Amino acid sequence: MRTAGSGKATGGTRRGPRRRIEVDLGERAYPIQIVFDEWERAGPAIARRTGASQVAIVTVPEVGRRYAPRLARSLRAAGLKVHRFEVPDGDVSKNLRQVAKLYDRFLDKGMDRSSAVVALGGGAVGDLAGFAAASYLRGIPFVQVPTSLLAMVDASIGGKVGVNLSQGKNLVGAFHQPRLVWIDTSALRSLPSRQLAAGMAEVIKAGAVLDRRFFKQLEDRIDSVMSLEPQVLAPILQRACEIKAEVVVADERETGQRALLNFGHTLAHAVERLSGYRKVLHGEAVAMGMVFAAQRSEDLGLAPAGTRERLERLVLRAGLPTVLPDFPRKAYLSAIRVDKKRTGRHIRFVTLRGIGRSETVPLTPAEILPSRR
Amino acid sequence: MRTAGSGKATGGTRRGPRRRIEVDLGERAYPIQIVFDEWERAGPAIARRTGASQVAIVTVPEVGRRYAPRLARSLRAAGLKVHRFEVPDGDVSKNLRQVAKLYDRFLDKGMDRSSAVVALGGGAVGDLAGFAAASYLRGIPFVQVPTSLLAMVDASIGGKVGVNLSQGKNLVGAFHQPRLVWIDTSALRSLPSRQLAAGMAEVIKAGAVLDRRFFKQLEDRIDSVMSLEPQVLAPILQRACEIKAEVVVADERETGQRALLNFGHTLAHAVERLSGYRKVLHGEAVAMGMVFAAQRSEDLGLAPAGTRERLERLVLRAGLPTVLPDFPRKAYLSAIRVDKKRTGRHIRFVTLRGIGRSETVPLTPAEILPSRR
Repeated sequence: MRTAGSGKATGGTRRGPRRRIEVDLGERAYPIQIVFDEWERAGPAIARRTGASQVAIVTVPEVGRRYAPRLARSLRAAGLKVHRFEVPDGDVSKNLRQVAKLYDRFLDKGMDRSSAVVALGGGAVGDLAGFAAASYLRGIPFVQVPTSLLAMVDASIGGKVGVNLSQGKNLVGAFHQPRLVWIDTSALRSLPSRQLAAGMAEVIKAGAVLDRRFFKQLEDRIDSVMSLEPQVLAPILQRACEIKAEVVVADERETGQRALLNFGHTLAHAVERLSGYRKVLHGEAVAMGMVFAAQRSEDLGLAPAGTRERLERLVLRAGLPTVLPDFPRKAYLSAIRVDKKRTGRHIRFVTLRGIGRSETVPLTPAEILPSRR
Repeated sequence: MRTAGSGKATGGTRRGPRRRIEVDLGERAYPIQIVFDEWERAGPAIARRTGASQVAIVTVPEVGRRYAPRLARSLRAAGLKVHRFEVPDGDVSKNLRQVAKLYDRFLDKGMDRSSAVVALGGGAVGDLAGFAAASYLRGIPFVQVPTSLLAMVDASIGGKVGVNLSQGKNLVGAFHQPRLVWIDTSALRSLPSRQLAAGMAEVIKAGAVLDRRFFKQLEDRIDSVMSLEPQVLAPILQRACEIKAEVVVADERETGQRALLNFGHTLAHAVERLSGYRKVLHGEAVAMGMVFAAQRSEDLGLAPAGTRERLERLVLRAGLPTVLPDFPRKAYLSAIRVDKKRTGRHIRFVTLRGIGRSETVPLTPAEILPSRR
């Protein structure tokens, strides 16, 4: 993993800093490019990285209305034929029916192996469009243009794509690395503040699990980050993307280290499942799950006293919830049991050894959630 | 690519020769094991190669009735939990609806990442079950147990899995290498002779395109092969699998050399499309397509005179058709135009330079099929 660029403004002071991170996956290596309000540069970069002659922009209505015209214009200026397909917003459209509809639309436009798919939107549309790209004609090139904070620092990096089944989330999918992740942070200006906070949960997680110094930076600058000051936001985003990219490179198919990024997710998935995935955002559930896991780490004698408190304080300042909803213990236990990270009776539960250090511990659901917490 | 074993009988003279071919794809390497009537050895081999604690045998009714009980017994004896799922026979079941049904059945049995899928049957069930395995939980281990000649020497090797859409064949899929290809040639005894002949088309193709000596062997032994004499069949199958494996290793994702194995397939796909995929078997269509392509190679001055005749003679001895059905030229042209191997106006048409030597030539459909052939 190399990183380049360090806040040099190009094209006048109006423009924010530009940063590039290389995800070194051998023949599947790709760059993450972080820019501020430079949509006109996206087209040439996408053309160069995919070698495609036509692209399908897959997006959701609101985001598509705001950014697709500028993205399409820049793709056309780069000589590409552009199609735009909209899917309903949110996790509900991450299903096999929508994938089949995308195949039909791709075929209808005569898309072949010299075509590419560009996902413009949040994590859900990236997962959906990415899986369609992974499986159409056994795989065509794919570019992520994330517009939510969560997608920028997490979902768009690492090649995990897929859809939900009625039985659970992300049960079908592929590992299909993008050719490019194009992050234009100006898109965050139109992101609802609740979504912004939810994305911050994953940023905080990256620091809590793997980088004590980054966690400290977040403590120092959380207010400037939440108000989207470009000069503060860019290095924070860069570091969050780097951490995710480092973990992906070390462990592309999620057998070892990548599991650490599941910190907070055991309880988060249970909360989402019990709430029916509607009332609570993924990042909010992760926030609660992290605070819970930090407390469990202290209780198990793994993390020093005060770890949970420090994490909880930062989570609160990001505007995130910290207390699990009041479902019966029994309900939590059965929701935990369907966890995909299960091997036999045990869950690989991610614990903290302190801020910035973590490890997985095999625990049964009852050990994760002792009878009187 | 290494090969080992050379006709040493084990377990008494009753047993035929045992052969093993390694497909050297780095971290995705796997063996092709050729045996005769040794179903009881399949279970331990599958257990060892997948590390699974439970497996789903996906099969079709007739083949399942004959072989699934012995395969399941040997898997159980190796300590695995076994489920058996049947799908309708033939290409009609290679669709997204059947994939979705398999996901449901996998979930219903609690299959997780320590589970594996075993495809028992012909190429269609291998493609279908393989794609389900490739995409379920983003990919679980997968074993091919081909029971048709076509699947043994072609479809089961190389990791190409997928399903059809109503718009065309194999439009959705993945590259998902099996952990093991287990070929028990005793299964050929129950294969209808028309299916056996169809499989021979791909065996002949391998020789015609890449191995003059192997082609000569086939000319010498075609009658013994067609009557399934185990001592003759095993080395022929081994060489056919080796050729396929060599090409796959050289070119896993089908950009260069692997395209040569499409010899005869441009016209074959057109014939299948025009016949509605029913009246003609894939191997039969390939046989006609090869003879046509050999003649075109001569006409274009690429292959010496007599090449087509020599190929045609062997094809006829295998009991295969050699003359294209009498559809209008216009119909052939438009059927050829939808070829997936198209780049722009040209098709990468595979020509012979003689028996055992081939190369692709970019031709327009009208050049492939000149107005008075």
